[in-house]
Amino acid sequence: MTIMEAIRNRRSIRTFKAGAKVSDSQIKVLLEAAMLAPSACNSRPWEFVVIKDRNILEQIRKAHPYTGMLKTASLAIVIIALPEIQEKVSGGLPKGFYPQDCGAATENILLAAMEMGLGTCWCGVYPHSRMIAKIQKILATDKLPFNIIAIGVPDESPAARGMYEEEKVTWI
Amino acid sequence: MTIMEAIRNRRSIRTFKAGAKVSDSQIKVLLEAAMLAPSACNSRPWEFVVIKDRNILEQIRKAHPYTGMLKTASLAIVIIALPEIQEKVSGGLPKGFYPQDCGAATENILLAAMEMGLGTCWCGVYPHSRMIAKIQKILATDKLPFNIIAIGVPDESPAARGMYEEEKVTWI
Repeated sequence: MTIMEAIRNRRSIRTFKAGAKVSDSQIKVLLEAAMLAPSACNSRPWEFVVIKDRNILEQIRKAHPYTGMLKTASLAIVIIALPEIQEKVSGGLPKGFYPQDCGAATENILLAAMEMGLGTCWCGVYPHSRMIAKIQKILATDKLPFNIIAIGVPDESPAARGMYEEEKVTWI
Repeated sequence: MTIMEAIRNRRSIRTFKAGAKVSDSQIKVLLEAAMLAPSACNSRPWEFVVIKDRNILEQIRKAHPYTGMLKTASLAIVIIALPEIQEKVSGGLPKGFYPQDCGAATENILLAAMEMGLGTCWCGVYPHSRMIAKIQKILATDKLPFNIIAIGVPDESPAARGMYEEEKVTWI
């Protein structure tokens, strides 16, 4: 699959084939993809929680109103953002860049999943404080949950929602 | 080129072949890639300024201390973030998600460029207010410049800086 094929064909998948297996070695490739994303001053402001436990997935689904697809997802990856790490490296130069860095890491997971025939749905958590608190409680952590990426084998083929829009471009 | 090849081989390129041509049709594919990134509630909080004018590129290079590679870059794309659009769609539900959405759009540009044999360097602007003000002045805009993506034909082969780190992963 070429890169533009993956970018053009990626969709947010909200219905997966229930019970489909995704192997740990596949999951590790997704995590590798995330960790190869660029980050400000190479600060790498991220950690990852891989959730295969159905009880935890159900707790998240009940706590977060836009994660209904976890019912059929094979797993979820929660990206944990590390703001404080960016205040320490390179004299604090990359401070505050973690949302965009974690956004790039997330996109890498979504595209790498495409190549494996897997579907994904990016469910936002940060910067909504109420949602952050709920996920922290479920994961028993005081670190910052950035998002929830539902992953599984797609059982739907949604239409495209993105497109090139010339009116958004200024040429200088 | 597969997706994982692009993700694994992507580097921040800071020396380009000076004077190399990148066509408008290539640039449009990069912009299409960006606009196909996912965004909160499909709010698409972005616009793009394509800068081929060497005078403007030089002004940016002199104003922003980490954009030295613009000297040899063929062009730059400045992503403009649109925070206000996220306060209007879906009852403001996607409010505050624009940095991560623009991060995903940026990563799509970097990966799409790989497939064309182009190199890129992601230069941060937002959230540094002094840098935002400088770029706004050069571009004569009051919109929010999010970053500067230098683009050209690579004239160096930097070593990899990212890697899979098992210690960053928790399995549940």
